[in-house]
Amino acid sequence: MAAPRFQSVGLIGKYGDPGIGEALARLTEELERRQVRVIWDAASGALPTRGDHQALPRERLGEACDLVIVVGGDGTLLNAARTLADAGVPVAGVNLGRLGFLVDVSPDEMCDRLDEIFRGEYIEEERTLLHASVQRGGETVSESDALNDVVVHKWDIARMIDLETSVDGRFLNTHRADGLIVSTPTGSTAYALSGGGPIVHPTLGALVLVPICPHTLSDRPIVVADRARIEIVVHNGGHSQAQVTFDGQVNFALMSGDRIVVRKKPRALRLIHPPGYDYFHILRAKLRWGENPQR
Amino acid sequence: MAAPRFQSVGLIGKYGDPGIGEALARLTEELERRQVRVIWDAASGALPTRGDHQALPRERLGEACDLVIVVGGDGTLLNAARTLADAGVPVAGVNLGRLGFLVDVSPDEMCDRLDEIFRGEYIEEERTLLHASVQRGGETVSESDALNDVVVHKWDIARMIDLETSVDGRFLNTHRADGLIVSTPTGSTAYALSGGGPIVHPTLGALVLVPICPHTLSDRPIVVADRARIEIVVHNGGHSQAQVTFDGQVNFALMSGDRIVVRKKPRALRLIHPPGYDYFHILRAKLRWGENPQR
Amino acid sequence: MAAPRFQSVGLIGKYGDPGIGEALARLTEELERRQVRVIWDAASGALPTRGDHQALPRERLGEACDLVIVVGGDGTLLNAARTLADAGVPVAGVNLGRLGFLVDVSPDEMCDRLDEIFRGEYIEEERTLLHASVQRGGETVSESDALNDVVVHKWDIARMIDLETSVDGRFLNTHRADGLIVSTPTGSTAYALSGGGPIVHPTLGALVLVPICPHTLSDRPIVVADRARIEIVVHNGGHSQAQVTFDGQVNFALMSGDRIVVRKKPRALRLIHPPGYDYFHILRAKLRWGENPQR
Amino acid sequence: MAAPRFQSVGLIGKYGDPGIGEALARLTEELERRQVRVIWDAASGALPTRGDHQALPRERLGEACDLVIVVGGDGTLLNAARTLADAGVPVAGVNLGRLGFLVDVSPDEMCDRLDEIFRGEYIEEERTLLHASVQRGGETVSESDALNDVVVHKWDIARMIDLETSVDGRFLNTHRADGLIVSTPTGSTAYALSGGGPIVHPTLGALVLVPICPHTLSDRPIVVADRARIEIVVHNGGHSQAQVTFDGQVNFALMSGDRIVVRKKPRALRLIHPPGYDYFHILRAKLRWGENPQR
Repeated sequence: MAAPRFQSVGLIGKYGDPGIGEALARLTEELERRQVRVIWDAASGALPTRGDHQALPRERLGEACDLVIVVGGDGTLLNAARTLADAGVPVAGVNLGRLGFLVDVSPDEMCDRLDEIFRGEYIEEERTLLHASVQRGGETVSESDALNDVVVHKWDIARMIDLETSVDGRFLNTHRADGLIVSTPTGSTAYALSGGGPIVHPTLGALVLVPICPHTLSDRPIVVADRARIEIVVHNGGHSQAQVTFDGQVNFALMSGDRIVVRKKPRALRLIHPPGYDYFHILRAKLRWGENPQR
Repeated sequence: MAAPRFQSVGLIGKYGDPGIGEALARLTEELERRQVRVIWDAASGALPTRGDHQALPRERLGEACDLVIVVGGDGTLLNAARTLADAGVPVAGVNLGRLGFLVDVSPDEMCDRLDEIFRGEYIEEERTLLHASVQRGGETVSESDALNDVVVHKWDIARMIDLETSVDGRFLNTHRADGLIVSTPTGSTAYALSGGGPIVHPTLGALVLVPICPHTLSDRPIVVADRARIEIVVHNGGHSQAQVTFDGQVNFALMSGDRIVVRKKPRALRLIHPPGYDYFHILRAKLRWGENPQR
Repeated sequence: MAAPRFQSVGLIGKYGDPGIGEALARLTEELERRQVRVIWDAASGALPTRGDHQALPRERLGEACDLVIVVGGDGTLLNAARTLADAGVPVAGVNLGRLGFLVDVSPDEMCDRLDEIFRGEYIEEERTLLHASVQRGGETVSESDALNDVVVHKWDIARMIDLETSVDGRFLNTHRADGLIVSTPTGSTAYALSGGGPIVHPTLGALVLVPICPHTLSDRPIVVADRARIEIVVHNGGHSQAQVTFDGQVNFALMSGDRIVVRKKPRALRLIHPPGYDYFHILRAKLRWGENPQR
Repeated sequence: MAAPRFQSVGLIGKYGDPGIGEALARLTEELERRQVRVIWDAASGALPTRGDHQALPRERLGEACDLVIVVGGDGTLLNAARTLADAGVPVAGVNLGRLGFLVDVSPDEMCDRLDEIFRGEYIEEERTLLHASVQRGGETVSESDALNDVVVHKWDIARMIDLETSVDGRFLNTHRADGLIVSTPTGSTAYALSGGGPIVHPTLGALVLVPICPHTLSDRPIVVADRARIEIVVHNGGHSQAQVTFDGQVNFALMSGDRIVVRKKPRALRLIHPPGYDYFHILRAKLRWGENPQR
């Protein structure tokens, strides 16, 4: 029998979830039974008795492990992905009972799936990440990564804002809207879908620009190649009436004239799925396509 | 020749518009030539030489006049309508060159239209107004009127909020969304249209509830009778992460648990149009239906 | 104990459903146990042993009965409603295991609900019906009723058609589209919803006009008062490239220049629901609003 | 001065347009003045005095010329593209006064643009074409190319049809709908946009699947890589109640069980634009983004 391909596994749990300690403990036990060294994310909430397991700051997990398992919902994995993106470590997601788009291993099949994954039977998928920076007066005042989306939106203001967009230096449009979503294929089934965007298959090298509640009814979602450089300039009278948000989790207040530059990150997220993974199957389950007609 | 039906006319101008003084002066001259007493809104910006015309606070214009003419855009008329609603005074709208849904007299036809209106040749339309109050711990902490819409929306938070709605005491839904628009027919061509709502003819006694970017794709706009009592309870962890906005102009910060109660006002806005007014004509012009096919 | 309010009940079954005979037989037994005279719709498929129950053509059921129970899906009730509309007889719907918007009594609760209904404990709702006629060269060449919708749509042609619409004699628009749906509130949760129309509460006196895949993106659904006279003139080069369809069940081929006139029928459908009927509850169940968030 | 790059130019005119003869004659004169040999499409309508210009069947134009100029609207170019696709000849489009997405040279700038193009100053763009075949009982019963879209849709039937789709052999969904559009990026601004699809930039290697008026509200447009093999199986009781349509111009009647296989053609259309061509500029002009806000 060959040695397990993954010898050192990091564990990240959903922040603030009361049941997460038990889930992590059970997963640790299963991993150690498979001779795998386990390192815990130091920030994964109040963990009960940790034994003598090592805990590291999340930023260092990527370097220290050759696989990271995230336990929680899609939001937990989004959060982890931004931290781990640069390390190039593969990531797998275990949900807490409710199927996610990203966390597709359920607790009751966890043991079987782990056996497969540690036998090297898994599917590795590359998921595009975005990097966005905010330029103000020639300087970068903020930057962050995103796995789902970069959203520029009005904030603390009732009226719409004007967002001037360009793609690879070519002027696209001045959107009068509540905001604009720049979404990866991964994000296309999240907020962008609520905003009227299409579903984009994860293997397609594309980004979607979705205006939020646009004033002009023909201002529709547009899909462009993910090698494109997207720029968004915020136009509104005062200051701090718009925000940029990364994956719905990190905010930065914008001033009029700020330029948000969005690019694909050179390095993609390595997402590990059990064998048999089928994107369309998850799509049908999450969007309830397979069920009896609703009307 | 009979005396003019309207003997005392209030004038309200678009706030902060540099050209408004000249427009008001010209309109004043035209009105006085028709033997009409003119009273200016004291808050209509820095008016050049006012001569000896009377100026009153806007709240008192409704009592003092038997017609109010609003010069500006739809936003100016929305603002005036909320102030004048209770007085029951009829309101006419003159635009500054760009047709509005509400301000449908253009400057270059102003004289002819005034002649008609003062001859009694006009169309009076009733436009439904909303009244909304915010209930917190059994007390009313805020209230306002709206001609277009009452919008409960997330604010200072990246994630969606949960809005529990009921109609006449019956539970409708818990919307997970960026917000919810309660719109009059007048408002149906404004923000609600951007949010995916239908156009509602102004003579129909109906309100539209439009969820903004709802999480559930089947959470669609719903049209109910305008005699309905709409209640919206905000559910989100902390406080002041949601706002209620009236006509996109007046905001109030909400706390989790706040209950927004929306009802039709007993008194409608009396909107005066020149003869020949045709709602569908304005609709075609504003939505560019009459033009060459775009594709 | 008072005599049952309904003494003579007509039964209509879903056409072509293999299990319908058994359902009708069981329902007949339950009704006769309650001393109710049962009359069967002669066209409700091959019914097993009918005993000596009377059967009548569907058109005569309305006159002969003081209640008609429809067993099947919403489509069965739509079909029955068009036939029974003029007789003014109340109609109740029993489904075959899958909740419908109109057939809201399920088989396993049928006995309890029948007891309530025959005790006079029920909710009677008026549902608007449409009447549409096709005018050609000054003559009426076709007419029909509809409970859901009257749809004018392209047929046997790949390109869009031009539909000139007016409301109460006022020109609305020339829609370039695949078709146009004129929907009642009842129909607003059927085809019109798929076409992008809003949900309209059944108690609202309104019709919805929904253009199907319109060329112009601002050509949006419009809600008008149901007292309006809707006229649609078909413009396309040749003949028989468009059709009008009533409730998705009855078709008539149109020629260019044909004028379809749609009006509310003076008489509404009397729809009987068990006590506790809640339109919003059915809406939530059918549109799956009450369930766990899908994403 | 170098010899013109294009020495032999084919001309195709809009079929059935009364003014097309004059436009073609003028264009011929301009081309011959530039020492270019002109060959006319034999089927381009009743051309006035042809002089001694050669005319060829359209199918042979691609072989005989090193550039084809299409005069008309986007529909004319769509039609020509299907015929010329295999020959690999570049195609340029001159409109008749109304800007098209594909025919972007206007008559009044035609001479200047021709000079540039014949100087070799032009932009050549590759536009994906589709090839679709209809499989019935193991045999191919129909096939065609499309530049915009392949549409499977109901026909001669009021109810929706069931369309079972797969992508690269993986089951996607069974769509209950009026039909399904498989669109290229070029087609994304045509019928697919009316059906709710996104705009797709022409340089992106993607196809869009857009369900038409789907029964299930979460059945949304999906964008996939254009190397994918799309299969659609028609499920409806009888026969000839569905059709497949190519570019809205060519129809074929389908039977239940027919399998439509859609693939990208190996050879793309070579579309010639004048220097300065800007896709976003055309998008803004056609969708009226650059104009004054409509509301």
